Amino acid sequence: MPESDSVTSTMPAERIQQAFSPGNLKELTHRLADILGRHMESVQASAGNVLNWYEPPENCRLASEFLDPASPLQNGVEPLVDRFEVLAKEMLARGHNLHDPRYIGHQVPASVPLAGLFDAIGSVTNQVMAVYEMGPWATAVERSLIDRIGQAIGFEKDTFAGLVTHGGTLGNMTGLLTARNVTLGDAWGSGLQGSDKAPVLVAHGDSHYSISRTAGILGIGTRNVVRVKLDQRRRMDPQHLDETLTVLRKTGTPIVAVCACACATPIGAFDPLPEIAEICRRHEVWLHVDAAHGGAACLSKKYRHLIAGLEQADSVVTDAHKMMFVPALCAFVFYRNRDHRFEAFQQDAPYLFDPSSPGLAEYDSGMQTLECTKRAASYGLWGIWSLFGQQLFSDMIDATFDLGRVFYEKLVEAPDFEPLHEPQCNIVAFQYVPDELRDAPHETLNQFLLKLRHRLIRSGEFYIVQTKIDGKQALRVTIINPLTTVDHLDGLLDAIRRTGREVLDSEHE
Amino acid sequence: MPESDSVTSTMPAERIQQAFSPGNLKELTHRLADILGRHMESVQASAGNVLNWYEPPENCRLASEFLDPASPLQNGVEPLVDRFEVLAKEMLARGHNLHDPRYIGHQVPASVPLAGLFDAIGSVTNQVMAVYEMGPWATAVERSLIDRIGQAIGFEKDTFAGLVTHGGTLGNMTGLLTARNVTLGDAWGSGLQGSDKAPVLVAHGDSHYSISRTAGILGIGTRNVVRVKLDQRRRMDPQHLDETLTVLRKTGTPIVAVCACACATPIGAFDPLPEIAEICRRHEVWLHVDAAHGGAACLSKKYRHLIAGLEQADSVVTDAHKMMFVPALCAFVFYRNRDHRFEAFQQDAPYLFDPSSPGLAEYDSGMQTLECTKRAASYGLWGIWSLFGQQLFSDMIDATFDLGRVFYEKLVEAPDFEPLHEPQCNIVAFQYVPDELRDAPHETLNQFLLKLRHRLIRSGEFYIVQTKIDGKQALRVTIINPLTTVDHLDGLLDAIRRTGREVLDSEHE
Repeated sequence: MPESDSVTSTMPAERIQQAFSPGNLKELTHRLADILGRHMESVQASAGNVLNWYEPPENCRLASEFLDPASPLQNGVEPLVDRFEVLAKEMLARGHNLHDPRYIGHQVPASVPLAGLFDAIGSVTNQVMAVYEMGPWATAVERSLIDRIGQAIGFEKDTFAGLVTHGGTLGNMTGLLTARNVTLGDAWGSGLQGSDKAPVLVAHGDSHYSISRTAGILGIGTRNVVRVKLDQRRRMDPQHLDETLTVLRKTGTPIVAVCACACATPIGAFDPLPEIAEICRRHEVWLHVDAAHGGAACLSKKYRHLIAGLEQADSVVTDAHKMMFVPALCAFVFYRNRDHRFEAFQQDAPYLFDPSSPGLAEYDSGMQTLECTKRAASYGLWGIWSLFGQQLFSDMIDATFDLGRVFYEKLVEAPDFEPLHEPQCNIVAFQYVPDELRDAPHETLNQFLLKLRHRLIRSGEFYIVQTKIDGKQALRVTIINPLTTVDHLDGLLDAIRRTGREVLDSEHE
Repeated sequence: MPESDSVTSTMPAERIQQAFSPGNLKELTHRLADILGRHMESVQASAGNVLNWYEPPENCRLASEFLDPASPLQNGVEPLVDRFEVLAKEMLARGHNLHDPRYIGHQVPASVPLAGLFDAIGSVTNQVMAVYEMGPWATAVERSLIDRIGQAIGFEKDTFAGLVTHGGTLGNMTGLLTARNVTLGDAWGSGLQGSDKAPVLVAHGDSHYSISRTAGILGIGTRNVVRVKLDQRRRMDPQHLDETLTVLRKTGTPIVAVCACACATPIGAFDPLPEIAEICRRHEVWLHVDAAHGGAACLSKKYRHLIAGLEQADSVVTDAHKMMFVPALCAFVFYRNRDHRFEAFQQDAPYLFDPSSPGLAEYDSGMQTLECTKRAASYGLWGIWSLFGQQLFSDMIDATFDLGRVFYEKLVEAPDFEPLHEPQCNIVAFQYVPDELRDAPHETLNQFLLKLRHRLIRSGEFYIVQTKIDGKQALRVTIINPLTTVDHLDGLLDAIRRTGREVLDSEHE
């Protein structure tokens, strides 16, 4: 087996051989092992910045320069494995370090690093689906996980169906497309322009933007999303839902679905699903639950109570690339009634689906997902589940959800911090109110908090996010790195105070 | 730095440490290097089967058994790195070997293996986008490639826009959603049910199923796809397009877009884009071109004539995971007029997009893609482009397109084979007609060819696909592995003859 070539070839056939060489693959992967090992060690030890901030034009210019191998950035670096190292290190040096325990930001996890190795097996060998024969093992892996997770949610074995798709937004769109096609009769074939009355989507007041986006895409219209009021903990108010559905039914308005949340993004509020499901059944309305973040709680003894009733939904979305701690993207969609599994899409592609083996259609994922060619998106999840068992997920969920509570208690105790809600999970929104701004107008405090976060994340010291709740600018954390500890949370409060001081000082100048 | 643990831990904190350990990451990646190197060498040498065929229930049962680490499959295998090897080897043993040069099947390439290593950097460190600050380098990489490829297509620098999404189907949907929103005024906000007259999508007679699927999703309706006739080489007939648009305009029917192909899937036919673009301009209709397969020809001097006129389209889709030979999924969407870049989606997500840095919205990919969280889908393409230069893509396109012609000539020469068209690229559809079936009814030959392919691919000797053209069952190849040679094509003809003989014999028994 040839080892890595020492000079980049200039003949077409040679260049192709070099790019496909098993020897190069082996040698560069060994080098990658050392690079990734050192990088992960340094990041987990907080040796550098969390976010490596550079202005977009600078990063874009540099990324473009690398595309010319004759550029000074790479020219003369030989052999190939050393050129690879130059590129890999630059990618890592300019990326975002989600594995730094001071990353406490978006609902994107510090993923289990080993999951990326299983994904790499799929990526290097390019395992894809659409039809079973293209990705037999990728299909099997996906099926085994759909079965496990569906049953953990509480669906009854052999009566439900599921699929894997590229993200929660696509998942919500797929689930609601099924609801639309089931509810509105011939919408798929004849379109929506025939209907007398505009159909509506009834949604949680805080639902993710993918829900109104879905209304825009599916021809329902974003203005035909009817919002249900929230209770004091920002959960869907069942009584208002009941009243809303009663009025809609009375006026003969077609209802595509009710969209509930487990949990909603702003503060991580879990809807009372058993009551909502009962109301939907009574009004004969499709219940879709966006459980992108919280669905994984089905794997935790301690927190599965949060999603009680999820098994009564008609369609459910849950993202493994959130609280199952695998790299993006790996989202699951479930249908309680497996008869609905082919309702989202219908197609005729004679070159694809094999009429000589009709039994295989059941295993052809392209019949059920928007994607035709689909990567083996669940190799990572299957790999770490197989290595460590289901218990690992429970451990990570419990550790991070527990810490949400701890952080909240710290906020309650600190006189200069104000939690904006009592958390149900690992999402916490809060304000920092220094003495100087205690009596300041709302908008002054809002602007101060925006500037504070802006400065904090670009310093590389911590990474947190922001949201707006009832007009109040909030700082927001998702504790989604199992390596984050109480000490890091104390450090965050200190860093916010220090950065706030700097913002105030810079304004006095 | 701790090296790989020898026993799987049973304490929550320990299990998490083990899963996140930099030492384990390093050790397992080194092991992966040896496994992948050996596997790739064996596959490229055709040492085993192309497709490893197992019936779906068997694969599903096995994939599920692995999810229990206490199962006999894994129990007792220690340390962790050896358990990892058991899993990795099973994944490879039951997958599909696209890198075997006898894989001549779907429009999914034997990808450049090293591209998977760059993807792995994104996957292990979980680099994602939606907002620039989450994936600053991932965003920059994507931007640099959009710029290069857009200009290679022929769009004018700084006047066009583009995005990366998870597959050609999602790409087509995104481009046509933009067309719908631009064409139908307030469709996004008010939905489609208000329109007097059903809008239509005018499409190539052979367009990919994602086009009619898009009509179903967007509320246009699959029956409102108007098909344009094809010429003798299955390209869109410009005269018939002109007549069709004239009639639609006369009757006041809203036209969402014309969808042309570069190339269409069944036989790889490239539409005459300059003529089509001129007709669309004259009728003031949006032109969308599905160049998922052929768009990459913009990187080849020899073949770029096939896509002349592509730069006149309003929206274009091209898949890097087809003829740029990177692993799935990495699809590009382009808008000729960059003013259209925010027309597909509109949303309000205060916790996401930073109102304190409005300039950054230009770099927040989530404003332009369906995906909210999106993986760093173009790391693989950027990596191999940077390592080998643009010339590598040209080499691979030329080698495989050239071979399409060679294969066609072999079919013409062979008395028992019949090409069903003259190929324009690397897609060739044909029939094998043994003497015994020369005068048989059409349907007898059709059934024979289905059985032949079925038997051939399950034997593991070659992998090819099938389609139906004007009622004729066709065998179909896409030469999309740069390691495939003329000898392999000769071998394929022999294997088809031999397998055909077996099918005939088994029916006489």
